[in-house]
Amino acid sequence: MFPALPLITLLTDFGTKDYFVASMKGVILTINPDARIIDITHDISPHQIAEAAYCLQACYRTFPEGTVHVVVVDPGVGSNRRPILVKTSRYYFVAPDNGVLTPVLDEETGVEIWQLENRRFQRSSPGSTFDGRDVFAPAAAWLTKGEALSSFGKLVADPVRINWPQPRVAARTIVGEIVYIDRFGNLISNISLSQIEAGKTSRPEIRVGEHLVGKLVANYKEGVADVPYALINSNGMLELFLKERPASEFLQIDVGAVVEIHG
Amino acid sequence: MFPALPLITLLTDFGTKDYFVASMKGVILTINPDARIIDITHDISPHQIAEAAYCLQACYRTFPEGTVHVVVVDPGVGSNRRPILVKTSRYYFVAPDNGVLTPVLDEETGVEIWQLENRRFQRSSPGSTFDGRDVFAPAAAWLTKGEALSSFGKLVADPVRINWPQPRVAARTIVGEIVYIDRFGNLISNISLSQIEAGKTSRPEIRVGEHLVGKLVANYKEGVADVPYALINSNGMLELFLKERPASEFLQIDVGAVVEIHG
Amino acid sequence: MFPALPLITLLTDFGTKDYFVASMKGVILTINPDARIIDITHDISPHQIAEAAYCLQACYRTFPEGTVHVVVVDPGVGSNRRPILVKTSRYYFVAPDNGVLTPVLDEETGVEIWQLENRRFQRSSPGSTFDGRDVFAPAAAWLTKGEALSSFGKLVADPVRINWPQPRVAARTIVGEIVYIDRFGNLISNISLSQIEAGKTSRPEIRVGEHLVGKLVANYKEGVADVPYALINSNGMLELFLKERPASEFLQIDVGAVVEIHG
Repeated sequence: MFPALPLITLLTDFGTKDYFVASMKGVILTINPDARIIDITHDISPHQIAEAAYCLQACYRTFPEGTVHVVVVDPGVGSNRRPILVKTSRYYFVAPDNGVLTPVLDEETGVEIWQLENRRFQRSSPGSTFDGRDVFAPAAAWLTKGEALSSFGKLVADPVRINWPQPRVAARTIVGEIVYIDRFGNLISNISLSQIEAGKTSRPEIRVGEHLVGKLVANYKEGVADVPYALINSNGMLELFLKERPASEFLQIDVGAVVEIHG
Repeated sequence: MFPALPLITLLTDFGTKDYFVASMKGVILTINPDARIIDITHDISPHQIAEAAYCLQACYRTFPEGTVHVVVVDPGVGSNRRPILVKTSRYYFVAPDNGVLTPVLDEETGVEIWQLENRRFQRSSPGSTFDGRDVFAPAAAWLTKGEALSSFGKLVADPVRINWPQPRVAARTIVGEIVYIDRFGNLISNISLSQIEAGKTSRPEIRVGEHLVGKLVANYKEGVADVPYALINSNGMLELFLKERPASEFLQIDVGAVVEIHG
Repeated sequence: MFPALPLITLLTDFGTKDYFVASMKGVILTINPDARIIDITHDISPHQIAEAAYCLQACYRTFPEGTVHVVVVDPGVGSNRRPILVKTSRYYFVAPDNGVLTPVLDEETGVEIWQLENRRFQRSSPGSTFDGRDVFAPAAAWLTKGEALSSFGKLVADPVRINWPQPRVAARTIVGEIVYIDRFGNLISNISLSQIEAGKTSRPEIRVGEHLVGKLVANYKEGVADVPYALINSNGMLELFLKERPASEFLQIDVGAVVEIHG
């Protein structure tokens, strides 16, 4: 088994205005002063599990093998949802068992899931509302100290999954949806390059919501103003954009909007 | 005396849009390339000393002993307020002498306060407006290099304190106030669990401003919509919240609002 | 030739809401696990090259010699603008060749510019839209591993420059402009202390846009409310401010506004 690197990423909905993220970092560094901590983002919309799952999926594989990814978007904090530790053939993940790791469980191999039960690796606290600091951060830190997975708790066989929408692919038609909107207002769909290529449509007609998309171009510089275009983005997914303008606002498109490709 | 770790936290009102924080980090790393720097937050409301003091108090103890905490919320930059270095039995603090360390001075033991006077540990600059970069960051960095406290300047006997409101506790009544509002709009009071327990009120009536609070619950999942509830938060303080909604906006409550508990 | 430190700064317009910056960090740490990464800011207004150039200029010299500064504000991503690596007598810079390094090219000595062409030091990607992750981050990381400059590509003799406004200095008059507005709404001009001193005007009359500025003071504490004042800021530049109030909003002044000094 490969060891956990002393490299921990943090992905939360805690924001950066308060001391919450710093508390997690303090706890980690108190347990393992050699740990290195990288922020993925703390600006997930509060309690939006799918948004966090998307962000994690989009970047976790850029990190070195052995990285410990900590995800705390946890509307159930203080309830009896389980805190878990997931080991795959390349990475470790620490998160609440609320489905935020669904794409990881789908895509990774060699998955083992352990419940975080052992109070020896948790911080005692007067309230029960800050598991990021008291449960998840310590687990990640102890993992980087070489603590065995089995010492945290028992194996979990039935992790919670969220609905992770897959496009419907039929003859000359793919129907997917917008799954993420980035800070530039670009609309990222769940339709992949390989699905489009499998459709073998050389000049597809693309629609997002009510809007007909200009055409598939190579980059954000192409196209004319105020017309939506599509491109294959840096993660291999179909993305809709407006030249130098937020497509989400201009087109009034939100996560969940239907994207259709007809060949 | 314990040495300063090469671990420096930064807490400022500089925001993250500009180059200000990066300038402090560059100065620190030029003096001590081995220093590690953790951001607490840079989004303190401009010049709000009490807000910074609260954020610091809420998290500084999660860090390892020997950490150097740098706080720069400094409406008096360029005036003759003193820059100071505080050593306690567990931590170091570097800040302007404007009261931002009031809770640290109240809670820590073994407090020594030194004025930052020695120009050898300061950066010369054409203006006198960026002590974060020119005075506080260098002091923290030199401290992590093992510089003796006495080499920075003379002892300070009369540090500035701000009004740090304490609740009034009487028979069957506690009157406190809201001291902090977090990014979720939760209302954090200055009333502690131990003060409530000392009151021995089994089913207290709680009010915040004009609003009657539902009851004391265990976590954010409890309660019904649009009714304010109370819980003991992760720092052991009474906190008022609305289920999945910012209580501050919905209840029109700001810092300073009165919180009353009747037993 | 001095080696590149394993210290990399990042300055982008990617924001902090998404996973973009984390992807760059993951790529860097996969190539060089010993690299240390400092954020300058990721909140440059989208595609604003001059704003990024100003931020970089204002802080890059606070970092240790050998630091690798990565700047990704890149409206031309995916087009044929060149990615470049610049070595000076003190620092390394990695950026698109779109003029964002203009002040560096003006101020540094010993400048060598290399095109990033070698695909061995680039990440292959399904799309062509994320050069921050696929081109710039890997180049910086390989540089910190000791890779020779010449292995990245060929020398560049004609880097792109942007218009970098210099004040016009005449007898008893200096005419400059506002080049940056910070988070406090302070207005930073391109007029330097040395230019003002050369003018030898003891009590200059200063105007910004239509507004007469009170006078030149020593720090932000001076002056009365709602009157604009000037000071020499921490980078030696003339800056206009309002006491505890954003001057940009109150005076309706934006980047590009004229600043005039009459002696």
